[in-house]
This record gives sequence, C-alpha cells and structure tokens, in this order.
Amino acid sequence: MRPHFDLSLYLVAGAPVVGARGLTDTVMQAVSGGVTMVQIRDPRGATRRLVEETYALKQLLKPQNIALIVNDRVDVVLAAGADGVHLGQDDMTPSDARRILGEDFIIGLSIGNPEEFAASRDHLHAVDYLGVGPIRSTTTKSDAGGAIGIEGLKKVRGLTRLPIVGIGGLGEGSVAPVIQAGAQGAAVVSAICGAADATDAARTLIAEIRDAR
Amino acid sequence: MRPHFDLSLYLVAGAPVVGARGLTDTVMQAVSGGVTMVQIRDPRGATRRLVEETYALKQLLKPQNIALIVNDRVDVVLAAGADGVHLGQDDMTPSDARRILGEDFIIGLSIGNPEEFAASRDHLHAVDYLGVGPIRSTTTKSDAGGAIGIEGLKKVRGLTRLPIVGIGGLGEGSVAPVIQAGAQGAAVVSAICGAADATDAARTLIAEIRDAR
Repeated sequence: MRPHFDLSLYLVAGAPVVGARGLTDTVMQAVSGGVTMVQIRDPRGATRRLVEETYALKQLLKPQNIALIVNDRVDVVLAAGADGVHLGQDDMTPSDARRILGEDFIIGLSIGNPEEFAASRDHLHAVDYLGVGPIRSTTTKSDAGGAIGIEGLKKVRGLTRLPIVGIGGLGEGSVAPVIQAGAQGAAVVSAICGAADATDAARTLIAEIRDAR
Repeated sequence: MRPHFDLSLYLVAGAPVVGARGLTDTVMQAVSGGVTMVQIRDPRGATRRLVEETYALKQLLKPQNIALIVNDRVDVVLAAGADGVHLGQDDMTPSDARRILGEDFIIGLSIGNPEEFAASRDHLHAVDYLGVGPIRSTTTKSDAGGAIGIEGLKKVRGLTRLPIVGIGGLGEGSVAPVIQAGAQGAAVVSAICGAADATDAARTLIAEIRDAR
C-alpha cells in the first residue's frame, strides 16, 4: 500500500539550494510552519551523502507522517527508506520505477505541458501524482522548460484526474491561483529555502493555499 | 546466483570518455579485441539515457557472456537489467546495494589504499570483487586518490582473497605488472577509449595480460 501523502504545500530542497541553514534545519523549520510533503533534489550530490541525508530526514519526518520523496534516484529511495521518487522526463520511466519499487512507494512525474502529458500516457498507470510546470519562469532548475502559466496548468488539469502539484516560480501571492486552477497543492523551492525564516514562509503559504480552497 | 564474470581485461567507458566513436561502437570493437568485462561510467548522465544505453549494450553483450556493470547507479542496474554495480567510496554502501539487489547481481567496490580496505571491512561480505587503484596517476577520474603503485596493490592483495582488478592509468606495458602482483585483471579507460583502433588496443592488452600469468 502506498504511504499517505498530502500535496498541499510541497517543499523541494537539497544541498544546492538550502544554503548555510543546511538541509535538515531548512526542512524541519518549514515543516513546523506547515509544509505537508518534502522532496530532496540534489542532482550532483554523491550517492553516499544523498542516502545519509535522506535516511536522517526520514527518521525526523516519520513521526509527523510527512511523505519524503527523492528526485530521480530510485536507488536512494530504496537505500534510505524514503516514501517515493519524483521523476522528470529525463529520468527513468515511471513504468521502470514501478517495476523496481513495487506497490508500496509513491511515484510522481513532471509534466511540462499537454504534449509531455500525451507522450507520457503509457506510463501514467504507474504514477501517483503529477508535478505540473513551470507555472512561472524559474531560475532554480536550469533544465526546466518554458513557463506554462495558470492557463497551461488548467489544460493539463483537464486531461487527467491524477492529483496535481503546481511548480515553478511559486511563492506568496502565486500559490492561490494554482489551487483555484484545480491543483491539489503548490510546490516551492526558493520561496521557503531562500526565506529569512522558513517557518514563517511556510505558514504564510499554507494559509494562502487553505484560503484558496 | 551471480552472473559469471571475468576481470581479465575490464573496460570502463561512458559518454564522457568515448568521444565521437560513441559508447556502443567503442565497447563492441573493444570486446571483439578481447575485453572480458564492461563498466558503464557516466556520473553526469541523465538517468533515462543511461538506462537506454545500458539496456542496449546488455542486449549486445548477452550472447558473448560479457558481464555489464554500471558505476554507482543501482537503479540503472535494475531498470536496464545489467549484471551488477561498481561502487566507489562515495556511493551507497555495498551492504545497502546487496540488500536492494539481492544475490543475483555482481557488486564491485573501489579501494584506494589499505586504509580504505580497513574502513570497508563491514561491507566486504556484500562484495564480489575489488577495484584497486589508482595504480598510476590518471586524469580520467577527477576524484581518484593518489597513485598507489604496484607496491600499494600488493599491500591490498595481501589483505584479502577477493578477486582484484587493478585500475588507474593502465595501458600497454603496465598491465603485466598488475597481473604479476596478484590481480585477476586490469581495468582500462583511455588505453582503449582513446585508441585509434579499440579492437587492436584490446588485443594488445589481453595478450600482455595472458603472457603475464
């Protein structure tokens, strides 16, 4: 059985973006402010360190029932006991990931536009949620495609009943429209990782998301 | 049961080092010259491409009974159906890899010197062979430690009965001493990937290795 997950306020964090506060402190402060799900994304990180960081975070998040997802690395998910993997279009296919992971892990898939959704159709049976975006232009992720806006999100929303988390350039004032467009949640990186107070930032964002429902 | 493997002439190759000849042609030309085992190493490669390249190579190598190993990425091994994984000291531990892979895959471990061997003792139960080096200084692998020479290889040889493949800066004229020091094989990168004719290069090297036994 899949672990419970709540896409409402989905934090994407990793060594490259957390800065001096560090990964653990950033994540735990953000969780205390209302983050509901966490993804570790560190595309250049050494595997040993990734496994250790993920394992340590999982122990901290377990009592709070917050799902912990690893970007790209199915091996790290298995070694560290995370709850699932988030796959981009350049990562392994969701079908391969499901075959390796079995039924007890969450699989998310990035969708950049309706064309990518169509190209991914054969793999959607293996997917638990979609990350749709970038909604707005972003500098956090160098390989992200062009911004699709709320209109692009609505188009993908119309194509599937899978849960959707909007992502890309989102922060205070821009998460409400994502929810109003039919997404179950909003994913943020720098709006929390770059905030002076990660707890305050998360609290503001989750309030905006709840108000928008 | 583990797949059969023969460390004699062990080619390490990947997109960053094969150049214009490409991965498949480089490997298959080298195999026709006498390479006995192949490792794909592409630390910056996108997972989707790695899986596809590994799967394609595995299909070509299967009829020849040549073991195909993937550097670092247990997830790619499983997705592509390779024969095993080669782990560095910064990759996941061999114990984690064995737990994930089970008994039907080969696990290799890099050992840079007797101290790294001692530090890895708790994981050696999970290991099928050791890659020991760099024997000579190398520019191929930026994170390799200092060259340990034939003397360093002999020291590690004296500590274990595990099969050993020497690696690091090896080529024509330097593979024989590695065998004479008690290694089961020699691993090469640029001596084959950088050669004008990969088949000729492999033929020369395997002849030197056989003569040294």
